[in-house]
Amino acid sequence: MAFQQSNLAWYTDREMDIRPELDLNSETPLYRQLGGYLQRLIESGDLLPGDRLPPTRELAGQLGLNRTTVSAAYELLEAGGLIKGSVGRGSFVCGVPEREAGGLNWSRTLTSSQTTSTGSVRPGVIDFSASRPSEKLFPVDEFRACCDEVLHSDRLRSLLQLGSPGGYEPLRNYLLQRSGVACPTDDILITNGCQQAVDLLRRALVRPGTKVAIEDPVYPGLRNLFVEAGAELIGIPVTHEGMDLYSLRQALEAGAKVVVLTPSFQNPTGALMLPAARKMIVGMARGAGAVVIENDIYSELSYFGGDAPRLKSLDPSVILLGSFSKIAFPGMRCGWIIAPKPVIARVTELKQLADLHTDQLSQAFLLRFAESGRLETHQAKMIAAGKERLRAVEQASGKYLTDCRFTVPNGGMNLWINLPEGLDSGALRGLAQQAGVDYLPGRYFSVSRPLDSGLRLSFAGLEPAEIRRGIEILGAVIQEAKGTREDLSRPTLAMV
Amino acid sequence: MAFQQSNLAWYTDREMDIRPELDLNSETPLYRQLGGYLQRLIESGDLLPGDRLPPTRELAGQLGLNRTTVSAAYELLEAGGLIKGSVGRGSFVCGVPEREAGGLNWSRTLTSSQTTSTGSVRPGVIDFSASRPSEKLFPVDEFRACCDEVLHSDRLRSLLQLGSPGGYEPLRNYLLQRSGVACPTDDILITNGCQQAVDLLRRALVRPGTKVAIEDPVYPGLRNLFVEAGAELIGIPVTHEGMDLYSLRQALEAGAKVVVLTPSFQNPTGALMLPAARKMIVGMARGAGAVVIENDIYSELSYFGGDAPRLKSLDPSVILLGSFSKIAFPGMRCGWIIAPKPVIARVTELKQLADLHTDQLSQAFLLRFAESGRLETHQAKMIAAGKERLRAVEQASGKYLTDCRFTVPNGGMNLWINLPEGLDSGALRGLAQQAGVDYLPGRYFSVSRPLDSGLRLSFAGLEPAEIRRGIEILGAVIQEAKGTREDLSRPTLAMV
Repeated sequence: MAFQQSNLAWYTDREMDIRPELDLNSETPLYRQLGGYLQRLIESGDLLPGDRLPPTRELAGQLGLNRTTVSAAYELLEAGGLIKGSVGRGSFVCGVPEREAGGLNWSRTLTSSQTTSTGSVRPGVIDFSASRPSEKLFPVDEFRACCDEVLHSDRLRSLLQLGSPGGYEPLRNYLLQRSGVACPTDDILITNGCQQAVDLLRRALVRPGTKVAIEDPVYPGLRNLFVEAGAELIGIPVTHEGMDLYSLRQALEAGAKVVVLTPSFQNPTGALMLPAARKMIVGMARGAGAVVIENDIYSELSYFGGDAPRLKSLDPSVILLGSFSKIAFPGMRCGWIIAPKPVIARVTELKQLADLHTDQLSQAFLLRFAESGRLETHQAKMIAAGKERLRAVEQASGKYLTDCRFTVPNGGMNLWINLPEGLDSGALRGLAQQAGVDYLPGRYFSVSRPLDSGLRLSFAGLEPAEIRRGIEILGAVIQEAKGTREDLSRPTLAMV
Repeated sequence: MAFQQSNLAWYTDREMDIRPELDLNSETPLYRQLGGYLQRLIESGDLLPGDRLPPTRELAGQLGLNRTTVSAAYELLEAGGLIKGSVGRGSFVCGVPEREAGGLNWSRTLTSSQTTSTGSVRPGVIDFSASRPSEKLFPVDEFRACCDEVLHSDRLRSLLQLGSPGGYEPLRNYLLQRSGVACPTDDILITNGCQQAVDLLRRALVRPGTKVAIEDPVYPGLRNLFVEAGAELIGIPVTHEGMDLYSLRQALEAGAKVVVLTPSFQNPTGALMLPAARKMIVGMARGAGAVVIENDIYSELSYFGGDAPRLKSLDPSVILLGSFSKIAFPGMRCGWIIAPKPVIARVTELKQLADLHTDQLSQAFLLRFAESGRLETHQAKMIAAGKERLRAVEQASGKYLTDCRFTVPNGGMNLWINLPEGLDSGALRGLAQQAGVDYLPGRYFSVSRPLDSGLRLSFAGLEPAEIRRGIEILGAVIQEAKGTREDLSRPTLAMV
């Protein structure tokens, strides 16, 4: 999806295909992508010692790349000892240095990747690409105080010893109680953040071919996990009110056995489902015998109150995922699953297989942070800060993104924007970066819809002034792009 | 393997099989195992509302259990509202409470378990069952000092923010250098202990049906991971000098593509491979194009020096796993993989999918602990302590285990003992526990050999006096069992 495949192959003297998949939106420069591709051909034995590589000018022409890009890729390979240039004769494959590949064909040995990279941000750019809190808001003094209390407690020795796969018992009890929706028939597992919660659940629930209904667009880390597991994904379109119920019903009729959704302030759209829709969803899923996984990591970031009931409170069979990553510290990998006991028994077994248990010191630090009341104080600050940022988003968007379609959410960290017709958010990203602003294009979040005109703005990590300035820049980039719409409605890589 | 299956079924009025798998060696009491089994039958719909359960006396007779065990299981189910007793008529299934199973058939929905439980130890028992350091030896003051340094550093904010999937950069660089065997073509990934390292590697290397050669006996957490992945396991017998080379050659000829081993102080045998055997192994694997995974978590616990070269130093294509869990703090889940770059690129991708990254605070704490020289000081103490414990093992075993076969290792935490012929270590365990000592029976570590006469003694977590006393008790239990060999050569659960 995120890849553009060249339509033309280059044949070496041995008539070898050179068809690199180059990702225009990646932060990895094109020359490194091309170099990596050629390196894999050499390591896999598809290119053999003595093979002549095409001259840079010719390969550049065939692939629609700048010649310097190809030259840089060749230099990379030469520096690694994989090819050798000879004046007037071209570049030749030397083969894989013995100590490098160790006699093993790694590209054939390793399982292949199903994921797409989202790239990383350049310094100096106003970065709307990460759905996470600003580290400037971290209450480090309060956190340090909690750590001190734990480190000077009698429990330190046992915290440093091997623990229980289910998690640190005092934290488990605290979270079960805090959730407010756990039934007596429920149990809890502490995971390394919600990402691991989803990983363990897909191991527990998905066999190859299992049909899984997920939001479209969706957080890619969630989509990729199910793709890796061999699930058959059914993308359910998301409006500003969440999953489209009609599409969900169709998916359930088509045999979806797992439904994964974020009813409150969904990532990437910020959508909030209404109470009536929530009731419909659990009812439909129950009727179809499908498992519902409720990803509940944003609901505590409700900026104007009036959040809807959690699905878990409507149906005890719902599997609830939680974490403090969005309201406290994302670097501390600590999340949890609250679910009926048979589910927790199975995922706890899988957790033990995966990594024995979650780091105990961090669990104890977070418990202290929450129990001492410091989490609540901090959460109030985060809500105030989020509200201020949301107001900046609303004002600036209303002023500068007049041609775009969007709905400002009531909580969470993300906003979805649809560009004016004909504009491609992936192609626009390069211009935006040059102008000093970054975001993630819609296609990163796509399940089965193209979403090329959409993009996600994550505002929580930025200062209000940065948000205003960033959206102003983005508005200008969009205006400019509308003038040259022809060029930006398709990828800038020349296709032959 | 660890389960004893009753040969007789009980038929309810609906002619339903009641064939519980009861684990005699589990710490979970039999009544809870039986109760859990019946609960699953009810939740899965195999037992339906209105079904009459067999009278306790009859079921006890059929399953060879004490009647009070069956009664306790029924009470458990009644307390959970799953069955209802009626004086003079027996116990009837009430069905699953609506709020309990939430309309979902969990036992059909969840993927099934491939693992065996090792149970946990009872208080007051001398516990030889855990391969981990004694928490009494943890240098908590030194560790606290490291934490303070990190918590008061400028880095705290960024440590609490989302990090890089590969791990905390300063720790990665430190460990690459410290390893002494990393090539320029290698890279490193920080994992949540070695358990996760193996989990990620099997995702990267194993497809269903991939043949994987592993030691037999082996650490069950390693075996279970590959079983879950659908690998075809080939157990390579381990002698006190490690993997049997002839069997390994056969496995490679039979198509093994991955070889996993612990050349230094293997768990559970304590075996140490000689340098010549190490060279043979990497040579054979290379010739067969097989990947070698070297689990190197015990080599730094060499009590008498003179450790053999790591496989990684003999062949750069070897994948090296490391961790400080055995020399420092097992509760801090921090391990690593050093391997050729293509491998690290793939496992880093899988790591990001699995849980984004390892907890950063812990990584920073451990780095500080190592860099400051405190790890080295502590390691010296651990080696001195290990030596003292090993001496206690050697003396006591020579005195009290005269009928057993064993080799005392030169390092690590574990010792493998073969009981006198005819004795079953699983059946003996109950007697040992009653007498005040616990261990893990050989069958927990089995891949394809029965190993019923073997057992593992993990000595590192105990005081020398406890070791002497524990082995004395064990010796007495063995002597006693030899007198009643008939009864102990098979499980004590009466088989009908």
